[in-house]
Amino acid sequence: MSTATRETQIVADPEVPLVRITREFDAPRGKVFRAHTDPELLVRWLGPRGLEMRIDHYDCRTGGSYRYVHSDADGEYAFRGCFHEVRPDELIVQTFTFEGQPDGVALEKLVLEDLGDGRTRLTVTSLCDSFADRDAMIAGGMEVGVVEGYERLDEVLARG
Amino acid sequence: MSTATRETQIVADPEVPLVRITREFDAPRGKVFRAHTDPELLVRWLGPRGLEMRIDHYDCRTGGSYRYVHSDADGEYAFRGCFHEVRPDELIVQTFTFEGQPDGVALEKLVLEDLGDGRTRLTVTSLCDSFADRDAMIAGGMEVGVVEGYERLDEVLARG
Repeated sequence: MSTATRETQIVADPEVPLVRITREFDAPRGKVFRAHTDPELLVRWLGPRGLEMRIDHYDCRTGGSYRYVHSDADGEYAFRGCFHEVRPDELIVQTFTFEGQPDGVALEKLVLEDLGDGRTRLTVTSLCDSFADRDAMIAGGMEVGVVEGYERLDEVLARG
Repeated sequence: MSTATRETQIVADPEVPLVRITREFDAPRGKVFRAHTDPELLVRWLGPRGLEMRIDHYDCRTGGSYRYVHSDADGEYAFRGCFHEVRPDELIVQTFTFEGQPDGVALEKLVLEDLGDGRTRLTVTSLCDSFADRDAMIAGGMEVGVVEGYERLDEVLARG
């Protein structure tokens, strides 16, 4: 078993205004899934280090919705959306808006694949309605939040 | 006041996998909005003539969800999704899946503009995650359903 931090790949699709994130975890699929659906686990890893996360509501089921707030010394950043589909251990499809840009909406899909030996590959795609919005999302510090968030998720999975 | 049927424009965007539908109505914005949010009105116009529409649930508010079933002599066609945002008289953002293709998801935005003189312009965009899915949606008889549906909506608005 490797204890090195795994690489997070963040790729801007050349054909459609979509970002694709891929990451492997040394944990079985069910455990990675629960870390995304259980708000008590989510709050321990989602986003970069150094931010506080407060959950307003997080009803992670098909037809549910969510809202949470990240905060640091500079202020608060709220995010919200609805869950189009939640398929246990496999798939979460949801919408995503940063309330600071209330007219921007992304459609996000999380797919979990069982790699055997208790390992899981996660793929998250984020679809925007323009290349400008997609590129602004990447330029807006997305990488730090994603890479550090998944390092924190490694730690949550190792403990649980 | 014109009684002629207005033209429905359906345009496939060349840059992103999106369809844009534009249509004007001889009714004020609030009335066009209510015809989209009140299930008792919706059931009278959504979709082509000759289909029955049954609503499983239609909770048209930010964070709500919906499911409805169209049926004809050949069978049933169910559709479902969640409401990301419902902004009265202005905007509805929702997800959309035809259950016959459960992994296909579109992100849809309805925008209503007040044209004055009791007239309203409706724009609906439907964003898919591939050009193949977008083009299949158009090829799959979308135009008949949209054009006939908006003719039926004209009738509902004229009566109400």
